[in-house]
Amino acid sequence: MSTVIANMSMSLDGYIADRNDGVQELFEWYTAGGDVAVDTGNDDVKFRTSDDDAELVQETFPSVGALISGRRLFDLTDGWGGRHPVDAPVFVVTHTAPVAWPHPDAPFTFVSDGVESAVAQAKAAAGEKTVAIASADITRQCLDAGLVDAIAVDLIPVLLGDGIPFFANLASAPIRLENPTVRKGNRVTHLVYKVSK
Amino acid sequence: MSTVIANMSMSLDGYIADRNDGVQELFEWYTAGGDVAVDTGNDDVKFRTSDDDAELVQETFPSVGALISGRRLFDLTDGWGGRHPVDAPVFVVTHTAPVAWPHPDAPFTFVSDGVESAVAQAKAAAGEKTVAIASADITRQCLDAGLVDAIAVDLIPVLLGDGIPFFANLASAPIRLENPTVRKGNRVTHLVYKVSK
Repeated sequence: MSTVIANMSMSLDGYIADRNDGVQELFEWYTAGGDVAVDTGNDDVKFRTSDDDAELVQETFPSVGALISGRRLFDLTDGWGGRHPVDAPVFVVTHTAPVAWPHPDAPFTFVSDGVESAVAQAKAAAGEKTVAIASADITRQCLDAGLVDAIAVDLIPVLLGDGIPFFANLASAPIRLENPTVRKGNRVTHLVYKVSK
Repeated sequence: MSTVIANMSMSLDGYIADRNDGVQELFEWYTAGGDVAVDTGNDDVKFRTSDDDAELVQETFPSVGALISGRRLFDLTDGWGGRHPVDAPVFVVTHTAPVAWPHPDAPFTFVSDGVESAVAQAKAAAGEKTVAIASADITRQCLDAGLVDAIAVDLIPVLLGDGIPFFANLASAPIRLENPTVRKGNRVTHLVYKVSK
């Protein structure tokens, strides 16, 4: 059975973007490495992480069988040009599907009947692989609905002071987590917490 | 020269206490260990941490030469009964010294002329040892004044959802930190970040 993992790069003070949606400091680790390009699932996207981070990326990206995104991130990224770097089907939670979507054959599904439906559809698509949630707002809704199995925080050594928090307005808090797995990178510390049941 | 380290136990979503000043989940690691009592600098205070956490406590507590507290924490703890668990002199930043302080001989100094003065006095008292800041509000003031050398976060596997944030209203953000040292514990991950200069 597929597990559902909420994964974001987050500043030490809890933000996943600055107040202008900027992620420069938060995504520095994707280019903080050496000369070797790290392949992703998308030929147009290469990272230049440290060796440790490359190992993690190359383990985790192929383990993702489906992604869940909010509409805001989808719009900000222009739908990743129809192909997310993880190269998995994307389920976009939205009230209304985009009118003009220039990639009708891309594996994108617009889900308008809530996060439970998005998670069910993503799990069906993922099979034995994981479902990754890449959105703070969807993560909040899924945590409150008890749908999240683990939280993967790529913790970034910066204090942004303001911005978009990863965790906010949780109706179901406090939420207890298990001790994390920890992997050190360059300009990032990778922490994966199972949500206690 | 003494270094200044801001140190707090913080939830994954950034809080150092819940909205009622509760720290039950955040301090669980102090009692999440085995049968062996861990000595502190105060005979009246014993921890029961895991072995790894005990090692950290026994390394770091004696390395602290002075503490800086805010008035709020001082009041909440009743001034630690005149003796902080770390057993170092305490400099309490406050507008007015308490009227009735039942431990006049205890190594407590009430500083009413700001954080720069408190840091200078604490450094003088600490000698070669470190100065520890145990207050979110004082940490904020010291970060904005460029007085903090390192941030030590004891990161707790819980989402509190609400409460008192460790980092808020930082005028000097973004503040870049170095890659942290990482030590795993039970119900805590110890992260120490140098503040980039």
